[in-house]
Amino acid sequence: MSSRPVLTPLAQSLPATVPFVGPETQERARGAPFRARLGANESGFGPAPSVIDAMARAAGLAWRYCDPENFDLKQALAARLGVAPDTIAVGEGIDGLLGLAVRLFAAPGAAVVTSLGAYPTFNYHVAGFGARLVTVPYRDDHEDLDGLAEAARRENASLCYLANPDNPMGTWWDADTVMRFIEALPDDTMLVLDEAYGETAPAGTLPPLDVERPNVLRMRTFSKAYGLAGLRCGYAIGEREQIRAFDKVRNHFGVNRMAQAAALAALADQAWLETVIGKVAAGRDRIAAIAAQNGLAALPSATNFVTIDCGRDGAYAQKVTEALLAAGIFVRKPMAPGLDRCIRVSAGPEAELALFAAELPGALAAAAAG
Amino acid sequence: MSSRPVLTPLAQSLPATVPFVGPETQERARGAPFRARLGANESGFGPAPSVIDAMARAAGLAWRYCDPENFDLKQALAARLGVAPDTIAVGEGIDGLLGLAVRLFAAPGAAVVTSLGAYPTFNYHVAGFGARLVTVPYRDDHEDLDGLAEAARRENASLCYLANPDNPMGTWWDADTVMRFIEALPDDTMLVLDEAYGETAPAGTLPPLDVERPNVLRMRTFSKAYGLAGLRCGYAIGEREQIRAFDKVRNHFGVNRMAQAAALAALADQAWLETVIGKVAAGRDRIAAIAAQNGLAALPSATNFVTIDCGRDGAYAQKVTEALLAAGIFVRKPMAPGLDRCIRVSAGPEAELALFAAELPGALAAAAAG
Repeated sequence: MSSRPVLTPLAQSLPATVPFVGPETQERARGAPFRARLGANESGFGPAPSVIDAMARAAGLAWRYCDPENFDLKQALAARLGVAPDTIAVGEGIDGLLGLAVRLFAAPGAAVVTSLGAYPTFNYHVAGFGARLVTVPYRDDHEDLDGLAEAARRENASLCYLANPDNPMGTWWDADTVMRFIEALPDDTMLVLDEAYGETAPAGTLPPLDVERPNVLRMRTFSKAYGLAGLRCGYAIGEREQIRAFDKVRNHFGVNRMAQAAALAALADQAWLETVIGKVAAGRDRIAAIAAQNGLAALPSATNFVTIDCGRDGAYAQKVTEALLAAGIFVRKPMAPGLDRCIRVSAGPEAELALFAAELPGALAAAAAG
Repeated sequence: MSSRPVLTPLAQSLPATVPFVGPETQERARGAPFRARLGANESGFGPAPSVIDAMARAAGLAWRYCDPENFDLKQALAARLGVAPDTIAVGEGIDGLLGLAVRLFAAPGAAVVTSLGAYPTFNYHVAGFGARLVTVPYRDDHEDLDGLAEAARRENASLCYLANPDNPMGTWWDADTVMRFIEALPDDTMLVLDEAYGETAPAGTLPPLDVERPNVLRMRTFSKAYGLAGLRCGYAIGEREQIRAFDKVRNHFGVNRMAQAAALAALADQAWLETVIGKVAAGRDRIAAIAAQNGLAALPSATNFVTIDCGRDGAYAQKVTEALLAAGIFVRKPMAPGLDRCIRVSAGPEAELALFAAELPGALAAAAAG
């Protein structure tokens, strides 16, 4: 008998890792706030004024527990999406829903397929529930759909993760290609199709919703185009019976009152969303122009960020990133081999992009020098 | 091979239960809002005006992800509690932290001890991670400390749950008695000591914090006396190494920006807290007086609610509850045998207690008649 409570064997096996170091942590370390916050693919254009008002109105009722059924929000989402409310699960951001999906569908030891360099928080959950991660390298800066489907078949995968549009590369597949990928997956592999960046993608990127299909969970969020990253509200759309399973394990009161109020208001203000989408497109063009001015190529992007190929190896791009951070410009970079030659810049407001434009030449020079 | 993705064996074994039906669900069913919201032990006195202001100010920055380290909040809690920040874990309410504690310390099949009729959400998490719940009946409307310790020893329990003050009965043990209970537990049983109602308890109820002890996790919340139930922010205090383990499995961005801002502001406004504690005490007295006027006994309470013994069996108390709900008075009741003779009423504002006082005689008459 141990003399103290011990972690479960699974918990013991886990590192005390953090999927992402937040910019606040970096600011505390450097002793100053960043001048431009372009690293987390937040929407620097903010939530709609109508949403800010809704939050302020909701604040006085913060003493009440939130509705654990997320009833009003599910009704509004259902009406907007043209599906039944019981084909929607609401969660604490896609992050929270990813954890629940892994917990529900990937038993300990089960194979889970994703791309090498794709979303680290998904991998964190896979490890956290004792499943076995199988990775497939990107191909030409896109997630490799043939490779993912082949791996899912080979490994009898319980889950397969695809982000479309992709993070961290910003690339995408059109809806027909995604549909063929879905057909190529085993019927008993659950595809987690992360569409966090769906709102900023070109028409024809998102396949039509099909809530009769039991092996696809579509995940979307209010964190990106809607400008509510800080509130943690995402949703999954899928077949009724699979969606119902989330009720078995979710933290029923987990999506808080402010998140529900803000998401509901955000959905109602589609004019703001359209404005933001336009600003994001302009921001992407601006980042591409900044890259070109520095002799660099920007990857085409369907997201609210642009990935810039720094033209050399990962160590060089890392130095560019560090020089930008030191200059007060918060950006991030892909880490997987092949992708790591790039840096990733959020399509934020012009004032911040101008700061990036001003600091990039010096950062490139510093990286080249040392 | 199945033709659709199947849940893990553990997930298949779980019912799609909901730990609590929210009052909003009941309101939708009855087609009208409740006139008095006295069933969920929320603080009808609300959050402090300073906290409402802080939320309104934070709303404009909702586009930013929250600090995943909860740095500022942990610093403020540490200063207030007189412990180091790394002995505190912040989570999505005690509900969220209970789930993490079960996941970390109770392997599938492990025994977990609690009282029969204690917090259902804890039991939900125990089932959800495949551990085995062992229950000990209450004794004289108190959690039976000798019985809990004996069960923990007999079952080699991984976890033991105690709420002090207790929910749903409102009773409590003094700090010395709790300390003796802690000493009586096996060294390798982790005690989850839920102190959600600690702020409203008499002096001498909460044992001193001892963050050297590896087998106690103290859990506290902003949901009760601080009036922030809707924001989902709780914290666990424990030994550094045990607390660090939460980083292995928590949803790192799960405590949202508004929750962190509100909790920080709430901590800073201790004058409001003191005011609320006084109002809660007055509310308890008022509920006891209402009970007495109806020939019923109120149990002594250290919480923000009062449990009233309806003097007959569970079926009768159920009818009283239903009659109150039908009259627009939201209350709840204990469900376990022996406890189920009672109803539970939150110490809310006088306007709502007056409505309860007006409706209770009719509810008792209806229950007696039918």
